[in-house]
Amino acid sequence: MGKRAVRDALKAGDTWPDPGSSPIGPEQKAKARKKLTAAGERLDELQEALYAEGADGGGRSVLLVLQGMDTSGKGGTVGHVLGLVNPMGVRYAGFKKPTQAERRHHYLWRVRKRLPEPGQIGVFDRSHYEDILVPRIEKLVPATEWRRRYAEINAFEREVAESGTTIVKVFLHISPEEQLRRLRARLTTPSKRWKYSSADLDARSKWDDYQRAYRDVLRRTSTGHAPWYVVPADRKWYRNWAVAKLLTETLAEMAPRFPQPEFDVDTELAKLG
Amino acid sequence: MGKRAVRDALKAGDTWPDPGSSPIGPEQKAKARKKLTAAGERLDELQEALYAEGADGGGRSVLLVLQGMDTSGKGGTVGHVLGLVNPMGVRYAGFKKPTQAERRHHYLWRVRKRLPEPGQIGVFDRSHYEDILVPRIEKLVPATEWRRRYAEINAFEREVAESGTTIVKVFLHISPEEQLRRLRARLTTPSKRWKYSSADLDARSKWDDYQRAYRDVLRRTSTGHAPWYVVPADRKWYRNWAVAKLLTETLAEMAPRFPQPEFDVDTELAKLG
Repeated sequence: MGKRAVRDALKAGDTWPDPGSSPIGPEQKAKARKKLTAAGERLDELQEALYAEGADGGGRSVLLVLQGMDTSGKGGTVGHVLGLVNPMGVRYAGFKKPTQAERRHHYLWRVRKRLPEPGQIGVFDRSHYEDILVPRIEKLVPATEWRRRYAEINAFEREVAESGTTIVKVFLHISPEEQLRRLRARLTTPSKRWKYSSADLDARSKWDDYQRAYRDVLRRTSTGHAPWYVVPADRKWYRNWAVAKLLTETLAEMAPRFPQPEFDVDTELAKLG
Repeated sequence: MGKRAVRDALKAGDTWPDPGSSPIGPEQKAKARKKLTAAGERLDELQEALYAEGADGGGRSVLLVLQGMDTSGKGGTVGHVLGLVNPMGVRYAGFKKPTQAERRHHYLWRVRKRLPEPGQIGVFDRSHYEDILVPRIEKLVPATEWRRRYAEINAFEREVAESGTTIVKVFLHISPEEQLRRLRARLTTPSKRWKYSSADLDARSKWDDYQRAYRDVLRRTSTGHAPWYVVPADRKWYRNWAVAKLLTETLAEMAPRFPQPEFDVDTELAKLG
């Protein structure tokens, strides 16, 4: 598989792949799982090198932005993909409905505070994109305001990218039928019930509005410095494999290198005795 | 194995177990690995319940403090034990030599900022204990000052515990012989060289001073609300198993419960159609 194969295949374009499809890569669960394990090992190694580079003064990091409808698998992706990397190298940030305190600030204020540190893979579980989607659909601010945010976010992400953070934005694309199955499962499985909120039904009832809003977001904010990818997410094993590959391709291209020692190895070995 | 078996066996006391011993639990690598996998699954489940409780307004969390000489395996423990938990539920904080900015504050300032959030397992890779150990051995502050910190830290940890964070403090106990092997391995393995610093040799040359300082720390700061455990750490598989068990025993005792739904399940299922 080419160095950009998964990124090229899943890059957001005018047409989106079917939520149940495999535009590239494994078509069966067992194979996908094996490949996920291999990708995870590679990801852990690459992140360690990025971290080593960071400890040496290098300032690079990665930011994975996860967006998607309720039940699209943002948390599951964090567990199954980022869970393959040493927690020292992962910075998770979940963005819920802004608190009273957060609302007193600019919407990017809380986002800036949670960017990854050098050497880390940051992951945003929801993000500043909620500040376009929700105000638009819930009519919380005038259209001129949320429309202005496209350019503002592009400028913000350019600044983040220029400061050394490679941004990977993923839309987890599920079908309304699959969401229905997952919402039912949340209700019928006691250990999953806490994840259910009847507010989820409200968002579900606005499915087409959200899809339209997401299309606009991806069209207007997929940039050279911060591209969007559409990951078919009806099948969890495909979703996990695809996100892992998007990250390994990205990190491999960054080619982090373990820093050269500033000491003489033989001298130090001799000192150890 | 009893509910407190590993905690009771490894609790810091007047005599410490040998760094290469198994005071409790598996004595062979293969068995320890299997048990680690099982403990990891349990830990992930328990943390999810703690998280669910947190999402519901519950405020409990866990803080694992890792201390030990260089190469004692703090980073490896994070990778192999905390790596078994969904990264959503883990908050890693590494404490290096304080920066210029940090030094302008009280030594607990940077520590408070990195406490776990509700539902999380926080992990401190080094901690406020460095603020007793290093000043004492390097004679950076008068003895009255670092001695004062025992009581100050006990009070701080009491406050943290009372606000809902269960504290588990682990000293990873290695032998000087094992440290020598690991330092050599760092020097001879290119991908590990970045972890080596010739400052490590300086601390190594003060081995007995550090052991004495650690003994005093553990004696004076092992409290009911924040006990210390001594984990034999010459064998990585034993260390990983032991830390995983200390955490699972602790979380099991906290008995986090998935919150009861505030909605009627059948009504919601009916709405879904």
